[in-house]
Amino acid sequence: MTVGIVGTGLIGGSLALALRNVGHEVIGYDSDEEHSRVALERQLISEVVDLRELARRSTVIAVCVPADHVVHTCRLLLDMPGSATIIELSSTKGHIADALCAHPSRGRVVLSHPMAGTEYSGPAAAIAGLYAGKTVVLCDVESSDDDRLAVVSTMYETIGMKLVYQGSRAHDMHVAYVSHISHISSFALSLTVLKKEKDEKQIMNLAAGGFASTVRLAKSSPAMWTPILRQNSKHIIEVLDEYMDTLETFKQAIQDGNTTKIHALISGANAIATMLPSSHHENSINQVS
Amino acid sequence: MTVGIVGTGLIGGSLALALRNVGHEVIGYDSDEEHSRVALERQLISEVVDLRELARRSTVIAVCVPADHVVHTCRLLLDMPGSATIIELSSTKGHIADALCAHPSRGRVVLSHPMAGTEYSGPAAAIAGLYAGKTVVLCDVESSDDDRLAVVSTMYETIGMKLVYQGSRAHDMHVAYVSHISHISSFALSLTVLKKEKDEKQIMNLAAGGFASTVRLAKSSPAMWTPILRQNSKHIIEVLDEYMDTLETFKQAIQDGNTTKIHALISGANAIATMLPSSHHENSINQVS
Repeated sequence: MTVGIVGTGLIGGSLALALRNVGHEVIGYDSDEEHSRVALERQLISEVVDLRELARRSTVIAVCVPADHVVHTCRLLLDMPGSATIIELSSTKGHIADALCAHPSRGRVVLSHPMAGTEYSGPAAAIAGLYAGKTVVLCDVESSDDDRLAVVSTMYETIGMKLVYQGSRAHDMHVAYVSHISHISSFALSLTVLKKEKDEKQIMNLAAGGFASTVRLAKSSPAMWTPILRQNSKHIIEVLDEYMDTLETFKQAIQDGNTTKIHALISGANAIATMLPSSHHENSINQVS
Repeated sequence: MTVGIVGTGLIGGSLALALRNVGHEVIGYDSDEEHSRVALERQLISEVVDLRELARRSTVIAVCVPADHVVHTCRLLLDMPGSATIIELSSTKGHIADALCAHPSRGRVVLSHPMAGTEYSGPAAAIAGLYAGKTVVLCDVESSDDDRLAVVSTMYETIGMKLVYQGSRAHDMHVAYVSHISHISSFALSLTVLKKEKDEKQIMNLAAGGFASTVRLAKSSPAMWTPILRQNSKHIIEVLDEYMDTLETFKQAIQDGNTTKIHALISGANAIATMLPSSHHENSINQVS
């Protein structure tokens, strides 16, 4: 089938590569001409077209634009001539579900969140294997037409993804816990170290693998993350409060020299190991830096 | 030469492997019999001996025990028959420098901190390549005898490490910034997610590579990290305060829906990319999960 990619950055470009690898025709549009040029040069897409042509020719359109442009782009596409199934791939869902719920063609849209990414962005960062073996969350599937959902499910499965179903509210709460808070923790860690450690040479000398790993997400793009943090603010604030309380507990234990308490906190934190897929365990060993 | 490893866990065991690979005889001692057994079985060391025999036979002794046992172990070894050069490899230096400064054989000891590790521990986690290409900090070198320092420097260089020199006080401050705070941030993140996200299945479904990377250090051993956090408490509290202030700034910006401020904070955090060795950049791309 022909898939139209709107937004040919890391997310859209990687999807394009994966879909071309399994034999689909992939055309693309990006409001940034330089992005279009690189996407074409890297052969992420076979052709750059305007939005109207993309809407007309595509069987499936993947909307891979920053979170604050998703609703507008979906509405534009739904109102153009064409009958494509439209999927959007952003990190927050509640506001999209709200904005589109009354649209007469809501059934043509499938809300999806592939749990995959890197700290890089743009078409130059796209990689074919980004999605293979990962989970994709499909949200509010009861609001999508059954045949649309079937096409999208097959498409994701074909590139090796595992399907999971959530309501958009539950999704936004869960990702605040396991994804958005990680980013804030990493941004803040970077800012702290940059402010406190004036001597750049010391950072470069002493930054062992552990620091690089913890601060990796701090390289993530502000254009992508600013709207995510704004749109999911309610859940994020809730988790952030809990995170800051936990840090305060750590601080008190360290200040009091309470080794029993410090030991108990670290032992409690160790429990996360059982929740992570074992592949991460293997990776970590191999990655050791 | 013969190197004696005291403490055959991740740090000592990996050093043993690297030294055997370049042709040294490596014997070992561990107060935990199970550790000794695994170290021998994995051929990290060629022989398990008692501490007295290790002191008598070794040219260099590497003390690789948890931070709260380093001073005691160094004193024991210095007072036994033998003339080995003693290196210790722990993460905090000030208290060791203080405790040993008046010892008549202080010159036999070299304080070193290899900036390498993983979130795993014990001899089963030891890997031959842990140290190659990494930095090792040598502290207060003016307090070590020149010939002792020369032997240790050559030994570290032979296994591919880059030498850096710091005073023990400066070292403790710098590692609080770029290593110890990363661990606390990761422990607290793990505890927060485990507490807030009651549904374990959701963690496993949604934990993308970013979360796994940020929380990796939360698997670190409490036996190793409790004494480190206690011994370096002064510097750690200082950095922790700054970290919590930065999180509060983020929270305010998100609460106010101040996208200009959020964007500026994330852009500021992005600057860490230039401070990290480019190899981490490459690794991250390959590791993307």
